[in-house]
Amino acid sequence: MNRLILIVSGPSGAGKSTLLKALPEEEFYFSVSHTTRKPRPGEINGKDYYFVDHKTFLEMLERGEFLEWIEVHSNYYGTAKSEIEKAFSQGKHLVLDVEVIGVSNLKKYFGPIAISIFITPPSLEVLESRLRSRATEDEEKIKERLNRAKLELTYASFFDYVIVNDDLEIAKEKFLSIVRAELCRPFRVKF
Amino acid sequence: MNRLILIVSGPSGAGKSTLLKALPEEEFYFSVSHTTRKPRPGEINGKDYYFVDHKTFLEMLERGEFLEWIEVHSNYYGTAKSEIEKAFSQGKHLVLDVEVIGVSNLKKYFGPIAISIFITPPSLEVLESRLRSRATEDEEKIKERLNRAKLELTYASFFDYVIVNDDLEIAKEKFLSIVRAELCRPFRVKF
Repeated sequence: MNRLILIVSGPSGAGKSTLLKALPEEEFYFSVSHTTRKPRPGEINGKDYYFVDHKTFLEMLERGEFLEWIEVHSNYYGTAKSEIEKAFSQGKHLVLDVEVIGVSNLKKYFGPIAISIFITPPSLEVLESRLRSRATEDEEKIKERLNRAKLELTYASFFDYVIVNDDLEIAKEKFLSIVRAELCRPFRVKF
Repeated sequence: MNRLILIVSGPSGAGKSTLLKALPEEEFYFSVSHTTRKPRPGEINGKDYYFVDHKTFLEMLERGEFLEWIEVHSNYYGTAKSEIEKAFSQGKHLVLDVEVIGVSNLKKYFGPIAISIFITPPSLEVLESRLRSRATEDEEKIKERLNRAKLELTYASFFDYVIVNDDLEIAKEKFLSIVRAELCRPFRVKF
């Protein structure tokens, strides 16, 4: 089993999704989460998220179909176990983009085959300006996200790796280097 | 302190020194060991090793000047503490090329700032043919080295990383990736 499970987290607006999109699709399978939040303009069901209503989400939850789930801003987010199986059957590295709070449980669940990566903006000031330039949310939502980011940053030191997403190319190279390095772990190398 | 201590080990003939020479000198300081063994043709004192006699080595040992030392094939090898200081003052990553047996103590001594990398040939067959093509040693020495290599390989799984040195460019990229990844450890990243 030479595939990695990459648990990625970090504040909204850190440039996580841009970074993840820059990674080669032939090597990485990006887990699609279920969510009860409304799609943003341009977001596609089944690609960005599986957009479901509260009733559907809670039914899946009851049937134990989620690997992890969380409630944020009155909406549910969850990773369905079926997504994991999809990734493994394609022989790709699995990338799980999850909320900070869910990382510790996932690490315990997967054991040493999973590594956690925290993606952070260079500073809270940069994060604020990114959130404002996005211009999809009102002032209250931005403030809520910034407060949340401050909290999330306090978790960073518990991750295996931290990538400061300042320059996209450098951040991408760091991500790929982490993957290459982890593939050199003794239990993954044939010799 | 953003510098790494890279403790590198592996069987003689694994291509360790070729790999290490391929790494950029402006980033890596290669610790020069003291040894009592005779220089091979082309080896330079102060560059490949500090070649010293038994008496000098034992005096240094008594004065506590070695970070680690070992006896192999009736010769002494040791890393002088002064080498470490040289590396740090230049702000470079320190590369220590040491015998397998010394790695565990160095890891304990340095703590989490040091990582261990085992460099291995693709197979014992490849190692044997490399040792023979080197043509600097007699049959007995080659057999001694091969037996030693078999033993050393059993230590590989205790290292942080294993690099199979088959293709030099790929091995180099793996080495550099390990360094880049380790620089993303939370305690090394400013955010």
